[in-house]
Amino acid sequence: MNFQKRTTRCGILNSSNIGETITVNGWVASNRNLGGLIFIDLRDRTGILQLVVRPDEEPQLAEIAKNIRSEFVIWAKGIVAKRENPNNKIPTGEIEVILSDLGIINPSELPPFEIEDDTNASEELRLKYRYLDLRRPYLQNKLIIRNKLYQIVHQFFYENDFVEVETPVLMKSTPEGARDFLVPSRIHKGKFYALPQSPQIYKQILMISGYDRYVQIVKCFRDEDLRSDRQPEFTQIDCEMSFVEQEDILNMFEKFFVRIWKEILDVDVPVPFPRLSYKTAMERYGSDKPDTRFGMEFSLLNQLFSNSSFQVFQQTIADGGTIAGFKVENGASLSRKQIDFFTDYVKKYGAKGLAYIKFSNNEVSGSIAKFLSSQEIDELKNTFKLQDGDLIFIISDKWAKCLTALGALRLEVARQNGIIESVNGKYNFLWVIDFPLFDWDEEEKRFVAMHHPFTSPKLEDLEILDTNPAQARAIAHDIVLNGAEIGGGSIRIHDSNIQSKMFNLLGLTQDEATEKFGFLLQALKYGAPPHGGIALGLDRIVMSLTNTDNIRDVIAFPKTTSGMSLMDNSPSEVSTKQLNELGIAVKIEE
Amino acid sequence: MNFQKRTTRCGILNSSNIGETITVNGWVASNRNLGGLIFIDLRDRTGILQLVVRPDEEPQLAEIAKNIRSEFVIWAKGIVAKRENPNNKIPTGEIEVILSDLGIINPSELPPFEIEDDTNASEELRLKYRYLDLRRPYLQNKLIIRNKLYQIVHQFFYENDFVEVETPVLMKSTPEGARDFLVPSRIHKGKFYALPQSPQIYKQILMISGYDRYVQIVKCFRDEDLRSDRQPEFTQIDCEMSFVEQEDILNMFEKFFVRIWKEILDVDVPVPFPRLSYKTAMERYGSDKPDTRFGMEFSLLNQLFSNSSFQVFQQTIADGGTIAGFKVENGASLSRKQIDFFTDYVKKYGAKGLAYIKFSNNEVSGSIAKFLSSQEIDELKNTFKLQDGDLIFIISDKWAKCLTALGALRLEVARQNGIIESVNGKYNFLWVIDFPLFDWDEEEKRFVAMHHPFTSPKLEDLEILDTNPAQARAIAHDIVLNGAEIGGGSIRIHDSNIQSKMFNLLGLTQDEATEKFGFLLQALKYGAPPHGGIALGLDRIVMSLTNTDNIRDVIAFPKTTSGMSLMDNSPSEVSTKQLNELGIAVKIEE
Repeated sequence: MNFQKRTTRCGILNSSNIGETITVNGWVASNRNLGGLIFIDLRDRTGILQLVVRPDEEPQLAEIAKNIRSEFVIWAKGIVAKRENPNNKIPTGEIEVILSDLGIINPSELPPFEIEDDTNASEELRLKYRYLDLRRPYLQNKLIIRNKLYQIVHQFFYENDFVEVETPVLMKSTPEGARDFLVPSRIHKGKFYALPQSPQIYKQILMISGYDRYVQIVKCFRDEDLRSDRQPEFTQIDCEMSFVEQEDILNMFEKFFVRIWKEILDVDVPVPFPRLSYKTAMERYGSDKPDTRFGMEFSLLNQLFSNSSFQVFQQTIADGGTIAGFKVENGASLSRKQIDFFTDYVKKYGAKGLAYIKFSNNEVSGSIAKFLSSQEIDELKNTFKLQDGDLIFIISDKWAKCLTALGALRLEVARQNGIIESVNGKYNFLWVIDFPLFDWDEEEKRFVAMHHPFTSPKLEDLEILDTNPAQARAIAHDIVLNGAEIGGGSIRIHDSNIQSKMFNLLGLTQDEATEKFGFLLQALKYGAPPHGGIALGLDRIVMSLTNTDNIRDVIAFPKTTSGMSLMDNSPSEVSTKQLNELGIAVKIEE
Repeated sequence: MNFQKRTTRCGILNSSNIGETITVNGWVASNRNLGGLIFIDLRDRTGILQLVVRPDEEPQLAEIAKNIRSEFVIWAKGIVAKRENPNNKIPTGEIEVILSDLGIINPSELPPFEIEDDTNASEELRLKYRYLDLRRPYLQNKLIIRNKLYQIVHQFFYENDFVEVETPVLMKSTPEGARDFLVPSRIHKGKFYALPQSPQIYKQILMISGYDRYVQIVKCFRDEDLRSDRQPEFTQIDCEMSFVEQEDILNMFEKFFVRIWKEILDVDVPVPFPRLSYKTAMERYGSDKPDTRFGMEFSLLNQLFSNSSFQVFQQTIADGGTIAGFKVENGASLSRKQIDFFTDYVKKYGAKGLAYIKFSNNEVSGSIAKFLSSQEIDELKNTFKLQDGDLIFIISDKWAKCLTALGALRLEVARQNGIIESVNGKYNFLWVIDFPLFDWDEEEKRFVAMHHPFTSPKLEDLEILDTNPAQARAIAHDIVLNGAEIGGGSIRIHDSNIQSKMFNLLGLTQDEATEKFGFLLQALKYGAPPHGGIALGLDRIVMSLTNTDNIRDVIAFPKTTSGMSLMDNSPSEVSTKQLNELGIAVKIEE
């Protein structure tokens, strides 16, 4: 061994250690030779410590110190002393270590970028040299908070009698919704495993097997075209409980989030979290994951405009559509250009147009001002509690399109007005429940499951499954934090007849259902308990805890948006021998 | 909700609960109608509870109870009462519950086999109906002990400042040793990810990034031809530490195993564990994973037979081979047939023959008796501390072949003599260290890494790397329990020059090394700390804790030896659409 092993860590020393002789090991963050004194900042996982070499007293150490550059790995021994010029910015700022011995353990070439929190190196360069990027305290802190989260998960679920069980990574391909990643089988050539999009069926099987409460921190995989906030592999906190109603699940996971926010951020999150039905969430915020940290709630205006002279509103009402709007305080000062921008913005979300009304100096102006009766103006003032200088945005369209576009507009206006920035540090958790059971797939002209095909209908909606499936609601629950969905789940179907009926409504023939999910249908026949659960997006929770919008900041070795690892250059080509053994060939259609 | 929710669990009730009104939910293990009384045994994860229906007093309950069959899911409410005929075999045996209410939550078809610990259903049938098999307390107990192990892992490493970090599942294919499972990339057609055989490189990167101590419970994958004790996906407790020597690692993991054995089995394992060099382990037990729970240790006999008149021994000595033997107490009574069996047995391990000498009634007999001088007989008696009635088995061959065959024979004799059965319940941990750095691959005529290419040579053997690589030893350590390797690791190379040299000695050209491991070679240049670690086989540890030889007993959803999941029939065929999207085709060579 060519070094002296540490007796302590850099970041945990403070004035209480003054006078102690210690040895530390770590990385050189900086090395300043002031002639009379040489200062070395040494970094390890716990923090930064100032080391001092006195060339007058220790000339041979000074010789070594002169050769030490940034990112060298060194060992250093000395006495902890009080610093003359304390640095309040770091926890060890009141002390320094006067060295009596020092050695280089491993040198370093000049890194391609400096290891500092504020870096202007491109993300591409940093992903290529991820091992250096991961040294930045900015990223280390995030991964260490991620570690704390793991520990709370382990403890919380153990205390609550959950059993940790591993489900298979090599499983059956049952493409529903997202695309599967496939794994060719060498032994059974021509056949494939799939990587799990979620362990949904296996956790239900575990409930049928009597495991009662299950938890797993588990990697899941979706071969989607990646957006900037998606990764092909992501981590879920996956849970399931038997003999429960939805409310039992919501209560359990409220306790869970309260615990996390308290232990990691020392924030007291009030319980119970608000519960909004899907319908209410849409009609109030235009989103099934509303950001409720600020207002700008919608009002539905069909009633108010029931006698409107504006032809567009008349038509929307006649077609059974929706007219809705929200107030922008002091929005009357918005310029024509800004309003044009917002008009274009809502078109991206499918709205045909955007109406607005300004109330300023007791005058009513704006795109539809001329169509408004004085009664309508009075009612608008009343409905929106208008003040002079306010503006109302209104969209009229089909229910979903109107509300979705208006919801997107609400967020964009809030962003531009600095409202979202102003609510940073606020944590609004809420449950969205009573989702529709089905979505209508316009392309395939069939119903698809809004969550997944194992979600239980609400018992009172069982009778309309055949007659009016679009109106049937699910016993489903999404947990939403500050406008992001951080998890979702449901009560599952535990009756094999209802499960068969669901497959049928989803357009699966009996044969297809048996081929894909036969073992679950079978399992449900042998005594399935009532059960339900939730899957939480661990990456997303860490993003919220560490206040970042970049999912790659909370994953040690992330992929780019095109699914590449720039550090190891995967995916990569493989040998023909490997492919032959697997019984597959590359075949790219031109 | 069509049932009353439980107020307690079945297995936790006892006489202290007598008089309480409780509700339980669970599965019917049995239902005995004695006319005057109906007894239902109800099962949940915690155990079994006897429920009693009194038809005279509760005729409507009796009607319900009559329709209840095994594996029905029911709810039941009643008063805990003292049992007239206690059952000492179960923890709840002193009580029963006199029911006042009862309902069926979900019926069950007749299961294809009875849910009992002793089952004669074939493993194939049980794997197909794994959801029923997993209800057997035999399997549930194993998975619950597995859960306890997870919890100890989480706690132990958290207490010891390890950081849990997830490494990628979709990584680069670098086939060395075992075959990779491949995952075709849809976005980068013609390219592939590989599933990790181990996160080896990533955990080293984490040390280079300054994470200091890393732990992960992680799935690993090897596409091997499966033996009965192998699974294509298996679980490792993967760890790495910076700024350590080998002894630091051994000490840490001894503490770990002591904790597990104490908390789960209440067994005190003495520390430190014995450390045997590879050479000693081979020369004493003929194995690098010796079962030291019993003796029958070898003696090397080259010296003793240096003047042997037996031509085979003369030749072995002249060729630089090894003569070794062990004593079988009372082995003189072995029949000719038994000895023939053992002779055939060692041939399977490559030995050309098996010599034996019997000492019985002061006579020396056996295959090589006639070649023995009286001095040799005296020395044998002395070396083996022979008693009348003993036998010696001797093999002479090349070092490795002689010892390996003799080691296999030692185990087989111990099995047949009931010795292994007699040491059941004994736990002999030990470390095997000082492994050779290289193995000579006879087929490819080149050196291969005995552990992996990142293992550090012993510093004192650095100078013979070029001149005599076969003699170079690694700073490697395997942990062995009762003759099974339950983990292995090493100190890693942290010097990029030595790493390059290793790749070179392993026959990788500079280009190949860069193509496969370039990012690691690069990373080593930017300040790599000394580091090392270990990976433990979690499945194997659970097997030992739960006393089973069947790896499928400790995995919730295992694969067969041909890599199939009989429950969900994976791997399975996938659609041409899926394959086209991935840019691959099935191509099976005839």
